[in-house]
Amino acid sequence: MPIEFQDDSAGVSDAMGFATSAVACDIREKNTERLDLALVCSAAPCTGAGVFTRNDVKAAPVRVCREILDSGKPLHGFVANSGNANACTGDQGLVDAQAMSERAAQAAKLPHNSILVCSTGRIGRAMPMPRILAGIDQAAAALVATPAESRRAAEAILTSDTRPKTCTARFTWQGKKVTVAAMAKGAGMIQPNMATMLAFLCTDAAAPTALLREVITTATQRTFNAITVDGDMSTNDTVLVLANGASGVNLATAPAEVRALFAEAVEKVCAQLAEKIVGDGEKITKVVEILVRGAHNDESAERIARAIGNSLLVKSSWFGEDPNWGRILDAAGAARTGLVEEKLDLFYDDTSVLLHGMAQNQHLARWKEIVRQPRFRIALELRQGTGAYRLLASDLTDGYVNYNKSE
Amino acid sequence: MPIEFQDDSAGVSDAMGFATSAVACDIREKNTERLDLALVCSAAPCTGAGVFTRNDVKAAPVRVCREILDSGKPLHGFVANSGNANACTGDQGLVDAQAMSERAAQAAKLPHNSILVCSTGRIGRAMPMPRILAGIDQAAAALVATPAESRRAAEAILTSDTRPKTCTARFTWQGKKVTVAAMAKGAGMIQPNMATMLAFLCTDAAAPTALLREVITTATQRTFNAITVDGDMSTNDTVLVLANGASGVNLATAPAEVRALFAEAVEKVCAQLAEKIVGDGEKITKVVEILVRGAHNDESAERIARAIGNSLLVKSSWFGEDPNWGRILDAAGAARTGLVEEKLDLFYDDTSVLLHGMAQNQHLARWKEIVRQPRFRIALELRQGTGAYRLLASDLTDGYVNYNKSE
Repeated sequence: MPIEFQDDSAGVSDAMGFATSAVACDIREKNTERLDLALVCSAAPCTGAGVFTRNDVKAAPVRVCREILDSGKPLHGFVANSGNANACTGDQGLVDAQAMSERAAQAAKLPHNSILVCSTGRIGRAMPMPRILAGIDQAAAALVATPAESRRAAEAILTSDTRPKTCTARFTWQGKKVTVAAMAKGAGMIQPNMATMLAFLCTDAAAPTALLREVITTATQRTFNAITVDGDMSTNDTVLVLANGASGVNLATAPAEVRALFAEAVEKVCAQLAEKIVGDGEKITKVVEILVRGAHNDESAERIARAIGNSLLVKSSWFGEDPNWGRILDAAGAARTGLVEEKLDLFYDDTSVLLHGMAQNQHLARWKEIVRQPRFRIALELRQGTGAYRLLASDLTDGYVNYNKSE
Repeated sequence: MPIEFQDDSAGVSDAMGFATSAVACDIREKNTERLDLALVCSAAPCTGAGVFTRNDVKAAPVRVCREILDSGKPLHGFVANSGNANACTGDQGLVDAQAMSERAAQAAKLPHNSILVCSTGRIGRAMPMPRILAGIDQAAAALVATPAESRRAAEAILTSDTRPKTCTARFTWQGKKVTVAAMAKGAGMIQPNMATMLAFLCTDAAAPTALLREVITTATQRTFNAITVDGDMSTNDTVLVLANGASGVNLATAPAEVRALFAEAVEKVCAQLAEKIVGDGEKITKVVEILVRGAHNDESAERIARAIGNSLLVKSSWFGEDPNWGRILDAAGAARTGLVEEKLDLFYDDTSVLLHGMAQNQHLARWKEIVRQPRFRIALELRQGTGAYRLLASDLTDGYVNYNKSE
């Protein structure tokens, strides 16, 4: 039972029974026709689970999503907007997020509290509710299960992303095809525990809530939480999964290997979306895979990987295509895990940079070739234990700084 | 007994009995006449103390300095070079750092192991020892206690700094003048536990080693360790203090208030040098003072202050003079100390931004004026306890990224 994987797919409507709609309601208040609101609904009731930002400051829609999920009632979809994060908006923000969920349910003739809600965009600004509610009505009237509309939904959730992010994984069991289809947005503020990133997974498997929760939590930890663009963690980060059972495959009664296949499909989808998010980080030019091995434990390995991946000096040197391993070593040491310089091996791709702490300068020309690639790997072997961590990081560019000077 | 403070002073030679010399030995191997080696010596023996980087990767001169200080023998000065950090240079680096100390002692006719050694510059490159040793000989032959030569010494230790950093504090006791005179270099990699920063304090008080150690450690914690440019901590960070007793004031036998005055003078000198280092961070345009108050404890306050001061999005918005308080809140929340949005007050200088979590948008015009200044303050009140921390930070500019693309 191999998994069939499709990158840049049509997105969430690839899963049976999920209709979508995208509209432009000028949430940015800039008089544009840019798509900025997406509605995704399943007529059949869904189970669902979510993973949310661990930032102390949580946006209103994050809080409303958790309430809806905690109620344990059947779900029917979600509404998501770009252009305004509805974060740091006080009580009014909660009222507005609740109103978005409620209006979407009414307009699509679905039960109260069955529509999850996500927002992304500028922080600390009141939501332009009249335009948003009118947009929701318009979207609910236009729900359709076509690839074209599903692609428009993937566009509507973007902020500073330069391209939509979708992919789909499928497998067949007893002649029935199960699909996990997804869309995401990323761009800035990408680090530890997600970032201004939203990811939506829809599946036509039937799955108990507890299983969904376990699968999406594990997958998020290994994928979305192991990427960094700028070390920031946003107030709105959300990964949601909805399962409507339309495929006829019920994971509650299916054998363990089918559940494992489902978990693999979900992780594959999340890994691909995570890779796309780093690759589309604001104004980046490089994606660098950082592998730390031989640490005292996994936590030390993670600290070192993040210290390297978030060092401004390291990231600037990647942008400059300078094989500056001294900065990598400096950043690793600054993580203060007790590494021992004399034990270290360092590699660019498969070419040695340091062996037992000694520079292998004879490879300088090859190092320069490697760091000129748009994607390369840095591997650090500490020889202290069995702890390991893998992080995807980006470079830091003058373009990032200028892009983020003001909004 | 007030402290008399002089900014941009002549530097270390302001303290009696300290001669200096600066030479150009082309350590950068770029065929320039740039000063890159400074020698500072006291004919009278000194006590001394140092504070060093806590990076796991420590440069060779840091290790040699610690050995010399640990030996407890009388000291007579230090030799410092820019252009090469002698870091990640293996056993040869240790041999070279030791050789620099030894040659300086011989050339200046001072005892073995009495000269401390510091290096700053590029990491991972062998020291051009023949030129350095010749430079040390030349410097030892030219030692002189003049303000002009002392200023040249302050120049010789610079890397990407745009200006020398010196200051001097003096107080009088029983008709005798005590001087604490200093020079420093800073620029990039400025954060937690110092940074590629070197600071040298010379005093003509006589002081027991234990007192010097206590005073310099406390002052460093409150000043050099409370600044950030780019969140990096270097392999070479060093603060040294030498005391030769030439003033005739002995702190071992002086009353407690004189020792307190000495500690105050040292902290004042360190605070001013720290301020200069942030203000001269690589290509920065703003210095921002971050005050966090009302945290559960000081550690939480520090975590929040550093999260704000090191956030790329916050730093970019400072560069853009955008009063983007949403990013400040997001960064504070990402520190995960358990802050409560609804309790927060936030101020730009003395103007409120948030009160109990509610935006005070009526002050928008004033916020914009404040963030246009080259130096302003952000104060965050958490209403959770009595923990507080103060951090000096800089903005992040496209110039920083381009400057650090390659070396």
